[in-house]
Amino acid sequence: MSNPVEPTNARSKRTLRHELAEGALFTDQYQLTMAQLYFERDLHERPSQFDHFFRTNPNYGSHQAGFCIAAGLEWLLDWMDEARFTEAALAPLRAQTDATGARVFSDAFCDWLGEMGSFESVSLQAVPEGRVVHPGAPLTVVRGPLAMAQLLETALLNHLNFQTLIATKASRVAEASRSRPVLEFGLRRSAEFGANAATRAALIGGAQASSNVGASHLLGVTPRGTHAHSMVQAFMALGEGELGAFRAYADSYPDECLLLVDTIDTLNSGVPNAITVFSELRAKGHEPIGIRLDSGDLAYLAIQSALQLDEAGFPDVGIVLSSSLDELLIFQILAQIDSEAPRYGLDPAKLVARLSMGVGSKLTASEGHPYLDGVYKLVSIEKEGEWKPAIKVSDTPAKTPNPGLKSLFRVYDERGRSTADLLTIAGTPDPSSDEAIELRHPTQPNTRRRLEPELISEIEPLLVDVVVDGRRVRDPAPLDEMRDRRVSDIERLDPGVRRLVNPHRYHVSLSPELFELKQTLVEAALADPKD
Amino acid sequence: MSNPVEPTNARSKRTLRHELAEGALFTDQYQLTMAQLYFERDLHERPSQFDHFFRTNPNYGSHQAGFCIAAGLEWLLDWMDEARFTEAALAPLRAQTDATGARVFSDAFCDWLGEMGSFESVSLQAVPEGRVVHPGAPLTVVRGPLAMAQLLETALLNHLNFQTLIATKASRVAEASRSRPVLEFGLRRSAEFGANAATRAALIGGAQASSNVGASHLLGVTPRGTHAHSMVQAFMALGEGELGAFRAYADSYPDECLLLVDTIDTLNSGVPNAITVFSELRAKGHEPIGIRLDSGDLAYLAIQSALQLDEAGFPDVGIVLSSSLDELLIFQILAQIDSEAPRYGLDPAKLVARLSMGVGSKLTASEGHPYLDGVYKLVSIEKEGEWKPAIKVSDTPAKTPNPGLKSLFRVYDERGRSTADLLTIAGTPDPSSDEAIELRHPTQPNTRRRLEPELISEIEPLLVDVVVDGRRVRDPAPLDEMRDRRVSDIERLDPGVRRLVNPHRYHVSLSPELFELKQTLVEAALADPKD
Repeated sequence: MSNPVEPTNARSKRTLRHELAEGALFTDQYQLTMAQLYFERDLHERPSQFDHFFRTNPNYGSHQAGFCIAAGLEWLLDWMDEARFTEAALAPLRAQTDATGARVFSDAFCDWLGEMGSFESVSLQAVPEGRVVHPGAPLTVVRGPLAMAQLLETALLNHLNFQTLIATKASRVAEASRSRPVLEFGLRRSAEFGANAATRAALIGGAQASSNVGASHLLGVTPRGTHAHSMVQAFMALGEGELGAFRAYADSYPDECLLLVDTIDTLNSGVPNAITVFSELRAKGHEPIGIRLDSGDLAYLAIQSALQLDEAGFPDVGIVLSSSLDELLIFQILAQIDSEAPRYGLDPAKLVARLSMGVGSKLTASEGHPYLDGVYKLVSIEKEGEWKPAIKVSDTPAKTPNPGLKSLFRVYDERGRSTADLLTIAGTPDPSSDEAIELRHPTQPNTRRRLEPELISEIEPLLVDVVVDGRRVRDPAPLDEMRDRRVSDIERLDPGVRRLVNPHRYHVSLSPELFELKQTLVEAALADPKD
Repeated sequence: MSNPVEPTNARSKRTLRHELAEGALFTDQYQLTMAQLYFERDLHERPSQFDHFFRTNPNYGSHQAGFCIAAGLEWLLDWMDEARFTEAALAPLRAQTDATGARVFSDAFCDWLGEMGSFESVSLQAVPEGRVVHPGAPLTVVRGPLAMAQLLETALLNHLNFQTLIATKASRVAEASRSRPVLEFGLRRSAEFGANAATRAALIGGAQASSNVGASHLLGVTPRGTHAHSMVQAFMALGEGELGAFRAYADSYPDECLLLVDTIDTLNSGVPNAITVFSELRAKGHEPIGIRLDSGDLAYLAIQSALQLDEAGFPDVGIVLSSSLDELLIFQILAQIDSEAPRYGLDPAKLVARLSMGVGSKLTASEGHPYLDGVYKLVSIEKEGEWKPAIKVSDTPAKTPNPGLKSLFRVYDERGRSTADLLTIAGTPDPSSDEAIELRHPTQPNTRRRLEPELISEIEPLLVDVVVDGRRVRDPAPLDEMRDRRVSDIERLDPGVRRLVNPHRYHVSLSPELFELKQTLVEAALADPKD
């Protein structure tokens, strides 16, 4: 063990952590050892290209995603703007020694990192945040000098894998919630400060608002929340009971009165006490907002609470459901309401229309599939002024990346629905809706599809320039624009792909030319493997 | 939507995020609405106590934890030291309005937050980091003025839930790895900057080292890593092949030469090329470190690689296994080596002794159970100078927290093994090993156990004072001390509790007096629920 880096008086512990562990050293050790190796061989500035893509949609076990929602780019760009090998960051690199006591990183390399180790030399294309994305198609393409493009890998994957994962989960929760508001409540069980990225991704992916105060204000969304069981407990312990707690809340927040009704007994105490307070509020000229149910059989309790509220003259106050919700549970609860509400004389559509969903841990931890398998693969490197495609062979053919510089298109069918994403070799003519397109499976030679022109309504390039030579060329998109992209893309999916369970598989295909290039490279690599 | 907070020129976007979303506003909205309600009723300084505990051990589906490892405290204390309601943090609170356009937070309350809104008034007891902890027993106890103790909830849960979750997973991976080194490689698929907390927790819980450069240096651990497939791919595309890549690596890092051998074909290319380079290295007076296997059947490939390496005169170089490892897969791989290695004339113990485990996403995302269900419950509040126990009733009796001020002990049996954790009412005489102890199940009146003095070897109080009136009273523990606590505690567990699958259940019990208090409070709350 080396000595931990101690804070000086001038820097707080959090500031030290921020500088040392959230800047340029927010990376894997092997990125630095490889970068130094390239530096020593004068390969560090060799133009190269890496593709970032994920291999599989999240599979939550009992349910599965049919697509993902891209997210995380803007905060990655913020990180890139500021990540620098400052002297504080270089100090531990200069001090690191190997088992023989020799330094691992030379002064020459550290000096180069200090002078040139920024992402100002890198260009980046990406599928914009909020868009629907599919396995095997690049979300991000990085071109730049070999060492810096390699050094970007870890932070890029970290930011985009995580936010894409959470935006995807949020879009599923929103889909299951039938357009009712989804509130993200996951901060307390999230991964430390990664919670803020989770809140951002949830807001892009389908949450209307969040309980997370700081992140919400940062993103321009009003944070949501009312009170906890502890407030009712405190009033009980002080002898004022649940009713006293509710009265206090109504008094402090007469126009935002939403009461948590399950501290003692939802139907025999919480809802009747809430109705008492709501009536008092109305007498003072205020309309109550609603109640929150946080335990028990939420479908049954929603029906029974609605009956009590209707009977008391509050047919419009909202009902927030929370307690270990995820998309499948929400789907089931709403289905249960559909079938059960009529037995109590309630219109299920009207009941559903007064619901909101508070979704916490299972959203921000992506329960069932807590990480996205995004990878960052070298696809091309320049040699003597020419781009050479790079290949990695694998025992699993599906894991062999698509080599070389490529273009990515989305093909829409005659109904305007997206039917396939298509990768072609960059520089070859773009596919056109005037002629037939041949789609090849990425690995299976005999799985192919031909789309005649009359079946094609639109062909859309998906990757846009985001950073050109270190300079951002697009303004950050407002949150609502990212949400609109998601809504529009999801509407253009086949309903089978949107299904929560066992969705239909969307195709990411190769052009015949790209398929042939890949085969040729794989065969060459395997022909004389020891070379 | 309100307007997003825009950075001024003086502050970068990351600094703004740090200030706004990682400081005092790293909380849930309802903590602030409750705090204001208490402030308006002059209850904000009322002494109160909250217990933090988790309800269930992680259940990963096919395997289950029998205990957890406490972690996260030190970084929570760092956060508490620095979290302040600065004017930057108060500005969005002052600006927030409700549906009628009225301000949500008054100037009086915001001013009070600005002046008094720190954790300097709070005291905190905790079970030290690294120790074995069990469901239902408090990990942390917070005492302080009601508003600030409540405002601490979200950040406390966030820090301790997450690091305890990851330390627990790491301890399981270490257990399955039979004391072979575990390396944490999860940064790229972790939750943004929460990755650093994951690295810290993994190092406490059982990882020997991490690939995470910044966090490792911050914690005084040398980061680990060599090279990726991309380096081999680059040399292949440049016409120098895998062998050229390996030679370059050995040249740059002659005393740390560990080669990734699966870019093309592990047994027909990677290992033979590695052996060539290892022989060249040895001729120059350097001993190679090892190879890394990152795909395929790792047990089979480890055996075959070992055979090739042995044959070539490298019986001692290490073999690092990676590729979607978790505790159960490691357990299976080692069991497969135990049974299969002898068929090839290899001693399995010798083969296992040269292995290390690189564990990534499944460790830092706690695959199978990605969040800990830790909660923070009001257990007592002062009224007229006297502590009043607080209760929350629940439809699920197991979810009713244990009320009042309590002490927590660990009871060791005659073999020196921990046999139960015991909660008693604070102020009652401590249990003694000189007399019998009666242990009551937390909810089932007829489940009880009596421990005679001859069956008790030690009774240990578990909670220690960490913060007294805002002042830290213990120095931060070095990493090795936290690791020693874990090793020592795990050794004193029953082997059945340590089992990876379907572990034996450890008992957290109540004293008879505490059991009676709880029953009395529950009955009183339910007797007249509408009061």
